[in-house]
Amino acid sequence: MQRGPWGGSEAEAAGGRDVGRLDTPAVVVDRGIAAANLERMAARVSARRQALWPHVKTHKSLAWAQRQLDLGAGGLMVAKLEEAVPLARHGVPAVYVGYPLVGPGPARRLTQLVAAGLQVRVAVDSLAGVACLADVARATSAPLAALVEVDTGFQRCGVASVDDAVQLAEALAAAGVRYQGITCFGGHITWRLSDDERRAAVVAQNLLLAQWSEDLRARGWAPEVVSVGGTVPTGHLDLLSSATELRPGTYIYNDVATVLAGAAQWADCAAWVWTTVVSTPTADRAVVDAGSKTLSSDGPVAGSFGHVRERPDVFVSSLSEEHGVIRARDGGATGLEVGDRLSIVPNHVCTMINLHDNVHLVEGRRVVGSLAVDLRGMIHS
Amino acid sequence: MQRGPWGGSEAEAAGGRDVGRLDTPAVVVDRGIAAANLERMAARVSARRQALWPHVKTHKSLAWAQRQLDLGAGGLMVAKLEEAVPLARHGVPAVYVGYPLVGPGPARRLTQLVAAGLQVRVAVDSLAGVACLADVARATSAPLAALVEVDTGFQRCGVASVDDAVQLAEALAAAGVRYQGITCFGGHITWRLSDDERRAAVVAQNLLLAQWSEDLRARGWAPEVVSVGGTVPTGHLDLLSSATELRPGTYIYNDVATVLAGAAQWADCAAWVWTTVVSTPTADRAVVDAGSKTLSSDGPVAGSFGHVRERPDVFVSSLSEEHGVIRARDGGATGLEVGDRLSIVPNHVCTMINLHDNVHLVEGRRVVGSLAVDLRGMIHS
Repeated sequence: MQRGPWGGSEAEAAGGRDVGRLDTPAVVVDRGIAAANLERMAARVSARRQALWPHVKTHKSLAWAQRQLDLGAGGLMVAKLEEAVPLARHGVPAVYVGYPLVGPGPARRLTQLVAAGLQVRVAVDSLAGVACLADVARATSAPLAALVEVDTGFQRCGVASVDDAVQLAEALAAAGVRYQGITCFGGHITWRLSDDERRAAVVAQNLLLAQWSEDLRARGWAPEVVSVGGTVPTGHLDLLSSATELRPGTYIYNDVATVLAGAAQWADCAAWVWTTVVSTPTADRAVVDAGSKTLSSDGPVAGSFGHVRERPDVFVSSLSEEHGVIRARDGGATGLEVGDRLSIVPNHVCTMINLHDNVHLVEGRRVVGSLAVDLRGMIHS
Repeated sequence: MQRGPWGGSEAEAAGGRDVGRLDTPAVVVDRGIAAANLERMAARVSARRQALWPHVKTHKSLAWAQRQLDLGAGGLMVAKLEEAVPLARHGVPAVYVGYPLVGPGPARRLTQLVAAGLQVRVAVDSLAGVACLADVARATSAPLAALVEVDTGFQRCGVASVDDAVQLAEALAAAGVRYQGITCFGGHITWRLSDDERRAAVVAQNLLLAQWSEDLRARGWAPEVVSVGGTVPTGHLDLLSSATELRPGTYIYNDVATVLAGAAQWADCAAWVWTTVVSTPTADRAVVDAGSKTLSSDGPVAGSFGHVRERPDVFVSSLSEEHGVIRARDGGATGLEVGDRLSIVPNHVCTMINLHDNVHLVEGRRVVGSLAVDLRGMIHS
């Protein structure tokens, strides 16, 4: 915590503004921490000879996408087809659209991307999805690949039976789309589970994937790729031997949810919001100038709408759009004064970053530049 | 519900695309409904000879700000000082910054606005806030006004005692800032209360404001302005005789929270998201292509992350970033198929609109244009 009034520091004279001089709320990304997170994951996955296809949803920045490729990523994943356009323009060679595409709009846009030379792989979990990919395959001679999405417990997308998966694989082949294997997302393995429960859930996911692979092999559709999404499952690589490929996203920045799920330490969190205490109406309540339009309203996680880095003894009890209310965990006085600065790690960094067009890049307390959130706002309007 | 495949309609031939032709997710604002909401509120408030200072946080669009002024608004309210800059550039004459400004950054930026001729009124609830305004008053000869924020039960900002309010009024006067009265936000009066409880809460708020006014008058600081924020309290104008001014924001578009709080009907909701069912892995679960990055993660409200307009018998049971999971209220089959289109009214329209740079303008099913969310993303980066 930096006590007001707002002062400069030696760091500023040394070649960069001190974060204490930033107008608040100020969204910052620590370049060194994020780069180290990327390098560590790349090394871990590579050591197991698995492929890494990072999900760009967390950072949405071309600069980081390039760094992930430089570190050996097989390609990049998007959940919105629209985000593949700037990636392709940037020169990314291969994109996994890990989202069910259906209907003529996606078919038209995907055709353009494939025809322009982008290697594209798509997730599919319905015959309507296969029909969309068939339209693309008919419209272009370039190759198109697909993974059949299977449900390993999250209960979102994904087929539930081997019969359904085989039906989709056959339909893909008939449509001229290359069936490559299976894909899943371990979104049910979260901070809400205990450490033991979480390990058990990853073990169960791994066994399920082994069973899917065996059953599909028996039916003539052995998966070449078994792809697993999620930073939390990826924290247990030793238990994910069935996976040939991992697709973490949040690992670049991390957040409260990944830390509480044991997939990162607080020191690995690379993105937070600098705030100023703007009101202390009572001793037990302080208000900072970051609310749901700055931090996003995801949560609460473990009772708080973010982690106050300088003061683990306080928490964010509620968010309005531009206000965050801070209270002491013991219910007593916060000890905060108007003008104090606090930095808050978001509960969910992906939705937080998505609120902003640009964020500050820092190294420790030194502001070293600005980072564009290039892929934000990719919607048709 | 529009059953796939995606077809055009007569409306298209009549001069505008049909909404069924929009790529999804598509955020739409019905121009006619929104305009009627503005007109109705302006007439209601004007009939009681109260002033209307609409909060622009909901629409963040210059076009609607202009319409609110044309309908007789005394000025416009912002919660972010930065948003006053484009409003001033657009020609808005008076802005209420209903947010505690503290420190040198806000003082510098406010000085520029005041010096440029914008009439500004600011909320203040601390001596540090008065010090910020004093800096502005010293730096420019143009008039600056302030309202003392009082807490009427929401427990966010606002002083709790008349002594504190008097101290601030005296400090404002000493600093050359015009004390105009008091301001509050009725954020505690929500859909969570029953109708009777909500009426009682508005009555209590009105009595509190009358008491504040009387106590301040007795101390020589009679408020000229008694300003009340919130669309829900504004739904009970007959009970808010103590207020001289209302500052609703959400009323332009409305949302699930305002409807469930009795402040609007479903037919008054002017903004929603057109989605496509992209996956139906089981009979009791459908997945649409709008998640927390499209609808915002505010909620759940009454157990759902949005209101499905065509199908009140289903609800949004969870949101991922780009997925919304739809289930039937009776726990049975949803009856939905891949390709079906559904439109979803957000729980909180202010955070939803804030996610997007542009939205589609429609009149019924006809797409008539695009609306820029001009004031989104006003953060220093």
